Amino acid sequence: MLRLSKFPFKTEKVAPKISDNKSTSLLLQAGFIRQTMAWVYTYTTLWLRVLRKIEKIVREEMDNYGAYETLMPALSPKELWDKTWRWDSIDVAFHVPAANNKEYSLNSTHEEVVTPLMKEFIQSYKDLPTCVYQIQNKFRNEKRAKSWILRWREFLMKDAYSFHSSDEDFVKYYEWMKKVYMRIFGRIWLWEDTVIALADGWTFTDKYSHEFQVKTEIGEDTIYICEKCDTAHNEEIIDPENFVCTNCGWTKAEVVKASEIWNIFPLETKFTKAFDVKYLDENGKQQTPIMGCYGIWVSRAMWIIAEKFAHENSIAWPESIAPADYYILVLGDNLEKAEQLAKKFESEWKEVILDDRMGKKFGFGAKMKDAELIWIPHIVVVSDKTIEKWGYELDGGLIEFK
Amino acid sequence: MLRLSKFPFKTEKVAPKISDNKSTSLLLQAGFIRQTMAWVYTYTTLWLRVLRKIEKIVREEMDNYGAYETLMPALSPKELWDKTWRWDSIDVAFHVPAANNKEYSLNSTHEEVVTPLMKEFIQSYKDLPTCVYQIQNKFRNEKRAKSWILRWREFLMKDAYSFHSSDEDFVKYYEWMKKVYMRIFGRIWLWEDTVIALADGWTFTDKYSHEFQVKTEIGEDTIYICEKCDTAHNEEIIDPENFVCTNCGWTKAEVVKASEIWNIFPLETKFTKAFDVKYLDENGKQQTPIMGCYGIWVSRAMWIIAEKFAHENSIAWPESIAPADYYILVLGDNLEKAEQLAKKFESEWKEVILDDRMGKKFGFGAKMKDAELIWIPHIVVVSDKTIEKWGYELDGGLIEFK
Repeated sequence: MLRLSKFPFKTEKVAPKISDNKSTSLLLQAGFIRQTMAWVYTYTTLWLRVLRKIEKIVREEMDNYGAYETLMPALSPKELWDKTWRWDSIDVAFHVPAANNKEYSLNSTHEEVVTPLMKEFIQSYKDLPTCVYQIQNKFRNEKRAKSWILRWREFLMKDAYSFHSSDEDFVKYYEWMKKVYMRIFGRIWLWEDTVIALADGWTFTDKYSHEFQVKTEIGEDTIYICEKCDTAHNEEIIDPENFVCTNCGWTKAEVVKASEIWNIFPLETKFTKAFDVKYLDENGKQQTPIMGCYGIWVSRAMWIIAEKFAHENSIAWPESIAPADYYILVLGDNLEKAEQLAKKFESEWKEVILDDRMGKKFGFGAKMKDAELIWIPHIVVVSDKTIEKWGYELDGGLIEFK
Repeated sequence: MLRLSKFPFKTEKVAPKISDNKSTSLLLQAGFIRQTMAWVYTYTTLWLRVLRKIEKIVREEMDNYGAYETLMPALSPKELWDKTWRWDSIDVAFHVPAANNKEYSLNSTHEEVVTPLMKEFIQSYKDLPTCVYQIQNKFRNEKRAKSWILRWREFLMKDAYSFHSSDEDFVKYYEWMKKVYMRIFGRIWLWEDTVIALADGWTFTDKYSHEFQVKTEIGEDTIYICEKCDTAHNEEIIDPENFVCTNCGWTKAEVVKASEIWNIFPLETKFTKAFDVKYLDENGKQQTPIMGCYGIWVSRAMWIIAEKFAHENSIAWPESIAPADYYILVLGDNLEKAEQLAKKFESEWKEVILDDRMGKKFGFGAKMKDAELIWIPHIVVVSDKTIEKWGYELDGGLIEFK
């Protein structure tokens, strides 16, 4: 159990003012984060718990879908990026000068690492389809603030890469991945507010990519949703003055602000060709595999959840990713009883925060304020009043000790 | 369960030759790793499992000792390093040019991040002692190969930082941390071969630091262990021609080769002074906290375990960190039965690798060779012969199905 009496990351009385969003100021007030530099944050214990829970959900769904976890390095040699002409074309890439007149990439994406890796393992059509993923830091050398969370310089990403022997197989896999992604959205309570928007292919593909956009007033993107067929378009791929739906040709659209948190790209053979990846097909002929990539910005998802669920004085976490299950608020001389209760919850595999802070400053009001600010789904009170009735209060109702 | 029929990271028939160690060639042969560039590796699924298990052991022991997990960024601003004069004095630091004429550190250590972080939370003697840690990538701009695993450019490290109100409290904490570390060594089966050696303080302290050195013939360090009082010394702090024990003055020592995998440093007030960290003591007077730091090179520990437990044809993982608990080897037309068994093991929270590869290439010999190369503690055979006896073979003995 986490005892607040010894916990270093204390809450603040008042939320610091942040001009463009609610969540950052609440996260600062709750002691969940501190800024190390512009757009680079340190996560403290409770925020890290939220992050790990989202990671676990993502990992479970990717494993279930048959993808294999790996861990690729954050650094990679320039030579790999020269092969795809992306050393200079990715404008946010960090280039790191190194000993012996070398230069490394501090990776913003990993196609240049995963493709030569998989080249070694893909030999036959029997090895396809296959998909590998990792949960790894990404780095972006951002020049200026755009808005809110978009411009982080360092963030955690899940990136998956699939390899296929036919376009048909790729399309099936890609479409199914959209469903896997929507399942993950469901588990972190963002399903309802998400649209899948057509977007630019950036340096990844000449085709459209698909962005998973969460509707939010402070979103950095503008999405045009066709009023006839519901196809969503990132503003960047249409003419805002003369909207024409790419799917049905309709000219009226609902316009919403949204934040992109995940994206998926058809990569065709751009990278497998560059690295000369070949497999033998059923007829013994050499072929080039078709590739797709699938991103989930884990730390950005976390921040968007925080923003979506931010109330006036707290962030109401979805239960699946809350920093703990029970917050036990002890008053008076009842610590022993509260500890017993905490151990009982823990024996049921629940996570407990024990508010065992004592002294005048920590009366019912102060403790309840923190319980609500940190936002633990279930609040338990153990006090003289509840002990008198041989019980504890759980979410406002009395439960007897057994 | 992990099905080898679909698993991309296949084993190789022959181990590639690596000149200076056994483990790297076995890890390459087993498909656990691939080199992305010199001293930078990609971890595939099974190696990552080993890594996560070591991480979990480290995390449990740190949490038990009352340290709080955080996650600090890999990047930090130059200004922080200017305060401690370490921007230029750490010779292996990567300096990353960034937009707007900035330069960032790609951190090789985190004192310059953790100290200003904790400055905000440490106000009173009541807040001390406190200790925070993280498990985060570290980066080192190494110039030349020294030996084997020492010179990695990117690796995972657990680093903890403690803060104290008196020297006495610090010493007690520091000595106890040595015991916590030896407990971790015990859980990953390195206890017997580890010595704690006095070593240079590097840019961290003018005092001696303590290195946890694992004895191994291919170690990069030479350790002098006093024959009288057992005090161990890294060669760098003694005169090899005229050894004199720093503790008892004895002049005879046993000399062993070893690899440093963890180290701890008394930091005194070097960093707390640089960042002007202050707390109010019992008398309301401002004081500067005393600091210690405690490193565990997680990925290096993993490699040393691999080397220590490398046999001729496989790495005999300690059971606590093996990539799975059971390896089920299916022969003939018995896949369904093997799957049932795998599910039974999984219902008991065991991890299973199911070798369901079919075809002429995958007879008993080929499968057993891989089972031993990957090295899973328990090998199960499900074949016509065992099914005839209504059972399966576990580590060579017949068990009946229930």
